[in-house]
Parts: sequence; structure tokens; C-alpha cells
Amino acid sequence: MVLTASKITEIRQQFLALQSKTYLNFGGQGPLPNSAWEAIQNSYLHIQQAGPFCTKNYAYISSQIAALRQALSQELNITPESLALTDSVTTGCNIVLWGLDWRAGDHLLLTDCEHPGILAIGQQLQARFGIDLTVLPLLQQAQADSEHLVTCFRQALTPRTRLVALSHLLWNTGTTLPLQEIVAVCHQQGVLVLADAAQSVGMMSLDLPSLGVDFYAFTGHKWLCGPDGLGGLYIHPEQLGHLQPTYVGWRSIKNGPQGFPEAFQATAAKFEIATTAFPLVSGLTAALHFHHHVSPTSIRYQQICDLSRYLWQGLATIPGVRCLTSTPPPAGLVTFQLESGKHGALVEWLENQGILVRLLLFPNSVRACVHYMSLLRECDQLIGAVAEFTRG
Amino acid sequence: MVLTASKITEIRQQFLALQSKTYLNFGGQGPLPNSAWEAIQNSYLHIQQAGPFCTKNYAYISSQIAALRQALSQELNITPESLALTDSVTTGCNIVLWGLDWRAGDHLLLTDCEHPGILAIGQQLQARFGIDLTVLPLLQQAQADSEHLVTCFRQALTPRTRLVALSHLLWNTGTTLPLQEIVAVCHQQGVLVLADAAQSVGMMSLDLPSLGVDFYAFTGHKWLCGPDGLGGLYIHPEQLGHLQPTYVGWRSIKNGPQGFPEAFQATAAKFEIATTAFPLVSGLTAALHFHHHVSPTSIRYQQICDLSRYLWQGLATIPGVRCLTSTPPPAGLVTFQLESGKHGALVEWLENQGILVRLLLFPNSVRACVHYMSLLRECDQLIGAVAEFTRG
Repeated sequence: MVLTASKITEIRQQFLALQSKTYLNFGGQGPLPNSAWEAIQNSYLHIQQAGPFCTKNYAYISSQIAALRQALSQELNITPESLALTDSVTTGCNIVLWGLDWRAGDHLLLTDCEHPGILAIGQQLQARFGIDLTVLPLLQQAQADSEHLVTCFRQALTPRTRLVALSHLLWNTGTTLPLQEIVAVCHQQGVLVLADAAQSVGMMSLDLPSLGVDFYAFTGHKWLCGPDGLGGLYIHPEQLGHLQPTYVGWRSIKNGPQGFPEAFQATAAKFEIATTAFPLVSGLTAALHFHHHVSPTSIRYQQICDLSRYLWQGLATIPGVRCLTSTPPPAGLVTFQLESGKHGALVEWLENQGILVRLLLFPNSVRACVHYMSLLRECDQLIGAVAEFTRG
Repeated sequence: MVLTASKITEIRQQFLALQSKTYLNFGGQGPLPNSAWEAIQNSYLHIQQAGPFCTKNYAYISSQIAALRQALSQELNITPESLALTDSVTTGCNIVLWGLDWRAGDHLLLTDCEHPGILAIGQQLQARFGIDLTVLPLLQQAQADSEHLVTCFRQALTPRTRLVALSHLLWNTGTTLPLQEIVAVCHQQGVLVLADAAQSVGMMSLDLPSLGVDFYAFTGHKWLCGPDGLGGLYIHPEQLGHLQPTYVGWRSIKNGPQGFPEAFQATAAKFEIATTAFPLVSGLTAALHFHHHVSPTSIRYQQICDLSRYLWQGLATIPGVRCLTSTPPPAGLVTFQLESGKHGALVEWLENQGILVRLLLFPNSVRACVHYMSLLRECDQLIGAVAEFTRG
């Protein structure tokens, strides 16, 4: 373990959610550090005390948004101008998927490892614009080597393919796609790439320019441990002028002297709409600062991988249990199946004992997630409980 | 005044924002009652203590959403199934405006009294689908009688008009459009009507079925005094099957046994997208309960009108000040102009004295809003300060 046990003990005291249970659902939602919760409370109080609606608060909220844009941009090595704030990963994906000027017969490539909400967007584009939609069967290939995965994507492209939407880190198997290589293959054929980064942001060290990805949609409420309802969408500067805004509002536009819209914002803010829960902005910024105060992202990622390897090894030794990956997971998601198939019953039984994991339907399985503040003891608890359950 | 001074004193103690200033910006954002803030805090704590991500919290959040849908539905006399939760009025308008299967040459009618964010949606639909967009010049007619206003709309319809989007209560002049009559005229010609209800919900007694409106988009953070970032969209049951979802996600769909999307939700929830700031839901429900505990909506509306008449009369007596309406306002918005045109300077000068009003650009003017918990003394303070400012 790269982070000391005493350091982890200290860190865990900063999370109300970690006090009374074995929490292994970081891929669903991260626990809110006390500092983020305090920042949200302070922001609510500040806004009520000064206004709520007044020019001073407009300046205050603008400065809080600018600070968050700055902090997220540093996390991803991008410019603040290329970042739109959203309420969720899914909204970020909607912005991109609805932002192309689709023509009937254009081709969109998704994978069967995307979140159902993203598949639903593709289906709706098909219904509205008559596009062709292919869902690449990736689950059975997810353990293949990078070269084979890249080949799968290359072979699924057609002359009419305009966009590939894929997850950087698959939410079910926990494997990482070779994003940089897939982007390179797509760009060779003039195809744009949208990555669903629900599981990668806050987990891995990320340098979006070197990945070359055109669009990167993420949320603050999973591995970044921010509040639910706040995320972001990176748009490559070269695509900023091409992607069309769909849902728009007062935050998207510049008004003329009479208060009528004259142009869209020049930055990715043109994809932001209107009033949102502004106090959450301070909360996510505080969560980012919390993590950076612990250690650089690379150290936290190493800690996560050390923990997930330990959990993966322990689960793999249990008779009647099979982990989805045949090698240690490259991140914090460890998914496994029971020979008995009783995944729903296991998740419920564990939750009643204060061990929180989640049921997946595709594949039918159980997903446990470890974050850098997880404990080996928690891994042992899960391993022991699963062993007990499978013994019946 | 229909509510007693002692009752108002008691009510005002429940608002942090009203303790230290003269707050007249309810049309921008309402102050959060303590009970709503406590409900938000309790919801955050509940979610962290139980999870955050677990099946118990899923059930908890679902029940909180159901309670809010029920409370809002009672407020509007609609069924919960016809209500989609949104983050803002503007998002509700986007859902409707992007939800029609527009063909090139179709006609959309807006008015020049719509919020710039709504006008921007119309412009973007024009750019994307080649529709015809007309902006009805309503400002100069806003004081006309109902019959004349209905005629304005009737004359602006064309055989290709598919939708009229208008504000129920104009955010600049504070006048109310004869929505029921306009809807009747539009429906005679097969035209649908979307109302921007930013200023009417939480202000007036509303019975949406009797208004006949097809779509009614509102927010919880203005006259309902809920948190920013939460609102709703009513969709008439007859339109629920016709309006197409645009932005979609896991909340829009029903999944099959393998976790893939099989159909949209049968209710207006199909227009909801994905994860949002769920603790706010409890806050808005608490705000609604707060108001209903004070008095029925009709009594609160009467109180608002009594106060706005008093403010309007006082402002109208000041030399160099002109109110936009020549009769007492039908609601809580009182907008006025200075002969000097120094509206920005006035707003800034007032804010520095703790009197919060807002600057409007179309028409260039100052808007003061009174809610049922406003004081005659606050009206006097504004009247006195404006008189002092205009004397120079």
C-alpha cells in the first residue's frame, strides 16, 4: 500500500458515510467528504445572507463556477474554456449525441457495455433522424488485448460512421479501453469519439489532450466524491465551433444591449443552460481539493489498484465465485459472478449486514468498488461474507 | 391586508434571507424557508448515513420524488403522471421546443416578452430545422385588454404554426396574459401552447386543466421559495404520447431483464434524464408545505396583490418615475422607469443600502417584487429611496 494505514484512518474520519459501514459502491456514488458538505452549506448560507438574488451573488456564483472550472481543468489537463458544466455524465453525452447535424443513413457506433441511458439516446437518434445504430458486442471481448480491441472498433466503422461513443473504463467489467489507440483509428477515418468517463474521472491520472478524444463526459459524484447533480463535458477546442448546442438558455448566450440573444458564448459554456443548484459548485471544488491534499492522483490510483488486486485475488479463491477479469483489474471495480446466479440475493444479504455493493444485469453479476480510502479489512469482510453466502 | 402583521412577523422569522435586508427580488429567486433548508440538510445526511449508493437510498429517493410530484400536482390540479421534474423553467421549455418533430417551414410563435434563453431556443430550432420563427411584439400591447391580446395572437398564427410559446405572467411588465382564451384560439387552429410559468407558479391559484394549456414549464426557486436547480414541466395527458423525448437517460426508460432499454416510461418521467441533486427534492416539498401551512394560495395571492398595489401607487406618485402598468399590477411584479434612465445606477445604489431589486434591459427599467411575506414598511423604504435617488 502506497498510503499508510494511519493516513487512511485520518482520511476516513472526514467522511460521514464511511463511519458505520463497509462501503464498496464508489462506482455508483462516492461519499461526500465533510469539507465538501461544509462548502455546500456555506454557499447556501452565503447566498441567502447576501440575497438570494442580487448582483453581489451573481459575482459570487460566477467566481465559484470559475474556480471549479479551473480545478477540473487541472485534473484533466485541459483549458477551462473547453469545459461545460453539466448535471450528469448522461447529460454530457446527450449534448454531444444531439449536437451533430445527423443525416439519415449516418452511422453511430456504441458498445454493449454502455450505460442503458446512453443506449437510449442512440435509439432515440435513430427514431428521430433515421441514423444507423450499431451496438458493438464488447462484453465478450473486454478481456482481449488492446490490439484486438482496437481492431474490433476499426472493423465496426463504416464510411458513414460519424461518431463512436464508448466508455473509457467499462462500468460492468471494470476494464479500461485503449482510448488513445481507438481515437487514432477513428480519426484516421474522420470519425469523432465521445468517451463516457463516469468511472475514469477521479480514478486515473488523465491527460485528455494526449488521449486525443473529441468529447469526454464525466460526473463529480462518483470517484471525485462530489455532490450528485454536477459534472462536466470536455469538448476538444477543434470541435467547439462544430458541435451545435441543443438545449440552451441564458447561460448559453451573449445578450445585446436590449437583452436579446445575439450570439452563443465563445466557450464550452454555450452548452450550459440556465439556473442550476449553484451551491453544489463549491462542494465539488472542495472535494477536488480534498483529494489533492491527500496525494497526487497517480499515488491514489496506485492505492486503488493495490486494493482491487487484493480484493480480486481474495474473491477468486472462493469456490463457486468467478471474477469477470482473468487478471487483476486495472482500476477500482471488481465484478464477480456466483455459480448459483443468486446475485440479487447476495447484494441484499450484504446490504443488510452493512456491506454495500451493487447488482449488475449485464452481465448478471455483483460489482464491488474500492477507492483509495478503502481498507484491506473491508476487502476481507466482503471476501468472508461472499464465502459464507456461497457456502449457503 | 388579508394576513395579519403578527402572522407576517412570525412567517418572516422562518427566512434567513429576510432578516437583514429589504428583499424585493422574488421574481429572480425566492428566499429559502428554514424548513426547506433543514429538509435539504436532513436529506444529505440521510443519504450519506445509509449509503450514499444502496437499494435503501434508491427507495428513499424514489419516495421523496413521489412526494414532491404529489405536492406539485396538487398545486396545479394535475396528475403526478403528467409532471416531469426538471432543473429549471428553461429546461422545461427546451424539452417541449425540441420535442416536436419540426419540418422545414413549420412556424413557431414566440413573444418579445420571453426570457432571452427561450428566444435562443427558437433561434436554434430555426438554425437546425429551418423552421419559421416569429417574435410577436407584445411589450407595446401588454396593457391592452384581454380581447385585444387574444386578437394579437390569433392574427399571428399561420397555417404552418405548430406551437405558441408565451409567458403566463410577463417577467418584465408583470402583466398576465389571458392564457385560457389564447389556448382556445390556438387549439381551434390545431396549434399547441407552451406556457413559461416562471412567474405564475407559487404566485397565483392555478388549475391547469381548466386553462387547457398543453405544456406548462415552471421552477421551484422563485415564488415557491424552493432551492435553485429544481422545477417541473406539466405535459397534458393528450400530448404525452406525441411529444418526443430529446435528452434522455436512465430515468427516461424501462429496462429489460438484461438491463437494456426496452421502452420509455409511460409517464412524463420519460423526460427526466439521469442523476440530479436528489436532496433538493425534499427541500422543494418542504417549501410547498410551508406555504400551505400559512394559508390557501388564493389568500396569499390576495396579499401579494394588496402589497403590489400599495407599492405601485407609491412609486407612481414620485416625480420622474413611471410605472409600466397604468393600473395596479395583477401580481407581485412592479416595474418602473426613471425619466433620467439611470436604472443601473439606481439598482446598484439600492443594493448598497440593502434594498434588492433588479435591472431589466427590455424595457430598460427596474423591477421590484413583493411576496406575501413582504412588508408595507419595505414598500415604503423602496418608495422613499427611489424618491431620494430621483431628487438627485
